[in-house]
Amino acid sequence: FFEDIHKSDLYDFCKNIGINCSFVPRNILFSEANFLIALGGDGTIIEIAVDAAKYEIPIVGINVGTLGFLTQTDKGDYSAIKDVIDNNYGLTECMMLDISIISKDNQEICNFLALNDLIVTGNSYKMITTSTSVDGTNMGRYSADGLIVSTAIGSTAYSLSAGGAVMHPEVDAMIITPICPHTLKARSTVIPGNSTIEITQIPPFRTEAVARADGKIIYKFKDSSEKIRIKKSKYTTLLVKQEHTNFFDVLRNKLSD
Amino acid sequence: FFEDIHKSDLYDFCKNIGINCSFVPRNILFSEANFLIALGGDGTIIEIAVDAAKYEIPIVGINVGTLGFLTQTDKGDYSAIKDVIDNNYGLTECMMLDISIISKDNQEICNFLALNDLIVTGNSYKMITTSTSVDGTNMGRYSADGLIVSTAIGSTAYSLSAGGAVMHPEVDAMIITPICPHTLKARSTVIPGNSTIEITQIPPFRTEAVARADGKIIYKFKDSSEKIRIKKSKYTTLLVKQEHTNFFDVLRNKLSD
Amino acid sequence: FFEDIHKSDLYDFCKNIGINCSFVPRNILFSEANFLIALGGDGTIIEIAVDAAKYEIPIVGINVGTLGFLTQTDKGDYSAIKDVIDNNYGLTECMMLDISIISKDNQEICNFLALNDLIVTGNSYKMITTSTSVDGTNMGRYSADGLIVSTAIGSTAYSLSAGGAVMHPEVDAMIITPICPHTLKARSTVIPGNSTIEITQIPPFRTEAVARADGKIIYKFKDSSEKIRIKKSKYTTLLVKQEHTNFFDVLRNKLSD
Amino acid sequence: FFEDIHKSDLYDFCKNIGINCSFVPRNILFSEANFLIALGGDGTIIEIAVDAAKYEIPIVGINVGTLGFLTQTDKGDYSAIKDVIDNNYGLTECMMLDISIISKDNQEICNFLALNDLIVTGNSYKMITTSTSVDGTNMGRYSADGLIVSTAIGSTAYSLSAGGAVMHPEVDAMIITPICPHTLKARSTVIPGNSTIEITQIPPFRTEAVARADGKIIYKFKDSSEKIRIKKSKYTTLLVKQEHTNFFDVLRNKLSD
Repeated sequence: FFEDIHKSDLYDFCKNIGINCSFVPRNILFSEANFLIALGGDGTIIEIAVDAAKYEIPIVGINVGTLGFLTQTDKGDYSAIKDVIDNNYGLTECMMLDISIISKDNQEICNFLALNDLIVTGNSYKMITTSTSVDGTNMGRYSADGLIVSTAIGSTAYSLSAGGAVMHPEVDAMIITPICPHTLKARSTVIPGNSTIEITQIPPFRTEAVARADGKIIYKFKDSSEKIRIKKSKYTTLLVKQEHTNFFDVLRNKLSD
Repeated sequence: FFEDIHKSDLYDFCKNIGINCSFVPRNILFSEANFLIALGGDGTIIEIAVDAAKYEIPIVGINVGTLGFLTQTDKGDYSAIKDVIDNNYGLTECMMLDISIISKDNQEICNFLALNDLIVTGNSYKMITTSTSVDGTNMGRYSADGLIVSTAIGSTAYSLSAGGAVMHPEVDAMIITPICPHTLKARSTVIPGNSTIEITQIPPFRTEAVARADGKIIYKFKDSSEKIRIKKSKYTTLLVKQEHTNFFDVLRNKLSD
Repeated sequence: FFEDIHKSDLYDFCKNIGINCSFVPRNILFSEANFLIALGGDGTIIEIAVDAAKYEIPIVGINVGTLGFLTQTDKGDYSAIKDVIDNNYGLTECMMLDISIISKDNQEICNFLALNDLIVTGNSYKMITTSTSVDGTNMGRYSADGLIVSTAIGSTAYSLSAGGAVMHPEVDAMIITPICPHTLKARSTVIPGNSTIEITQIPPFRTEAVARADGKIIYKFKDSSEKIRIKKSKYTTLLVKQEHTNFFDVLRNKLSD
Repeated sequence: FFEDIHKSDLYDFCKNIGINCSFVPRNILFSEANFLIALGGDGTIIEIAVDAAKYEIPIVGINVGTLGFLTQTDKGDYSAIKDVIDNNYGLTECMMLDISIISKDNQEICNFLALNDLIVTGNSYKMITTSTSVDGTNMGRYSADGLIVSTAIGSTAYSLSAGGAVMHPEVDAMIITPICPHTLKARSTVIPGNSTIEITQIPPFRTEAVARADGKIIYKFKDSSEKIRIKKSKYTTLLVKQEHTNFFDVLRNKLSD
């Protein structure tokens, strides 16, 4: 049961280790698969993470491009598949964000899951002002291009571009990072994993605010009394981890001399 | 049983709430006190934190200067003392760093405790190159003015000046931040609180490396085969916390518009 | 001859110093005015700067909000108007950007003027990759939310939020700053004022690129062979400067303790 | 007439192009040489820059290590020497800093020249507070590890590590960058090349201040009424420039993807 595009390479590899493989539609995939094999980069894993999490299916990331934090093997290394079949692997449970849009009268309008991050920006590349609370305590207001709430996994993605710190995947925390803040004092802030974050757009309203989960638009604010509530999800992304792979190997490769 | 300099103000306050107070030498202080009252700023608490931790004595921080992360009350607000006497308070357990200097033949040369941070720099303001491992895995090498390993509490001190992220005191993590790194790719990195960090100086040796705990020199490296090992201490700093005080109130005051 | 909204305050002030004032349409304003009085903040000056530059009319900035780099007086201080009438003032000539959109066959499609900055971003908050040349030499490619080319005056606006350095208004230079760059090595770069900068969007094309001058959309790229050419304009913004006002006074107020 | 250590390679190269070379002491070198050939990296050029500037001798930088901003050729490429002999080269005039230590009674105590930067720090890795003025106007006070005043050439050295912007060598400006500032608002600031900067240490005095020119200690402050005055020197460093070499080629190599 597989996902994605480098099908023939994978087909050949499987045949070589004595497995016949076939390709099925997405709806059947998630209901029947024992493992999902993501051929691609981190983006491929992000794309199937939500469905995989809901069906509790572990993901085997096969790197076919550049080295990533989620796909930590060398390009074109299919050995992880053999390890899975040989039952020789570990699982990393990655925290996901449970994101709710809350209406004026405190009703949940809709709910989303994200592996990397929740981003609030203006609709038309204009500055927005937001007020953020953590567990009911006012954390401050930022006038900025936007605000990122990221998991440890997501800390190496957009949050890092915006100046956030890198978080090891096993740190039980979220990181809040403003995007191009107007105030010079704003800094990236790490908060406990079990916190509940609430973000509201406040005046001046130069543009409507838009919320994105893992890069995809999930909601356009209609009313300033709406808010976004973010907390740790009960779902997790299960990543198959080979023994020799390591977060710091990738980090060292990307961050040191 | 008290510590520090604004003695007369404190004496008056105590008298007003029906307590006689007397001032004793430091050695008696720690062995007999039930609470330590630190009159000053965050620096005062840092200074007594190690002894207080070893004797398991909670510290009541009274702010007599600028608002700090450890002394969160308004300047000159002695009400925390009354709260302690009335048994109306909480305790924040702050993680401390257990710092060992390890010799070439893997013996512990000496051991220190720190509340804020461990800093490795060159002795004479020259760049040093260090290699850092986390739980035995190579994290990378940095050519920089130095390297900071900070607790959540310390993340708002020197680590922040060097570009590190702010960490909420309840995040179970440490943050590693390079000081003026030569490579442009280096970033502040958050790792789990139960990690063991080892730092070694590596060539080129432009100057000897010096280790500082909470700002005080604890060791000058004699040999490049020596290393510093840092992990979570069994000791914690116990801070008396009034109900209305809050990390985010101080943070908002310092970081937002 | 005046511009903007705090009309009655201004009217009263003028009357007090013996001048009658009347309010005229924008087209007449620019063709007949000797001075333009901008009541507002830096944004108000930005808005009239292009027309004022073309008609070579000096601008008197009157601060009616927060202290700005262009409107350096205290809020509600109309004394600059009296200084102009008394002929007791200096002029600061502020460099402006001459921005051309160049077609595939090297024709100028359109031309714009900007006082602060030229910004290239994606149309839909997706990363774009751009290649930038300075005087025909390849400066590098950036994958980022976008790229800012700013004058010295604009260096304290959006460029600063994106991590750029502050430039004194008399520095004859432009500053190029990437917005949330994907690569960790990107830095803000200062280039000589007489340079010609060319920016092209290159693959991968996740979204079409959009160019903004002083915050307003001026062009949406239709074709990757189009490019933006930026150089120093022959026009300048003439700002009336009172003797006691100073760039560093504003800077100190905004950037130091 | 040559300087430095890769003598035999150079000797061979010169012999091949028909030149006999001999090696002479430093004092003779500067009084008699027409060109100085610096074999090494940027550090080698920095080391001879002051003497070469005073004797107005152009420097030919030969890269024998990593690519640098001053030695822009490929490692071991001696072709620049041939170009000089063939009279086929350009000269880049690099601005230098004229640094004076000024006593309490406004006398010049001593004077130094620097190609890269002037750095003020504390003597013992403690924070210092400085007050800086530009052309007599107060620019602000910084509590920080120190302060860097850098030329365009020096902007890619220590100033960059401390978070400063990169400046093209032809920008007529200096850049002031705080090192690990205590305040979160401090930013790197570019000022006109003909400015006069004055730096004074102000209370609280935690440690004495030390001034370094191009990395070497030039003065330890004895008295807080002393100050450092920095302006553009009448001397310049003359760098031989081959036609095909380019600042942006090095920059692109170091800063982009």
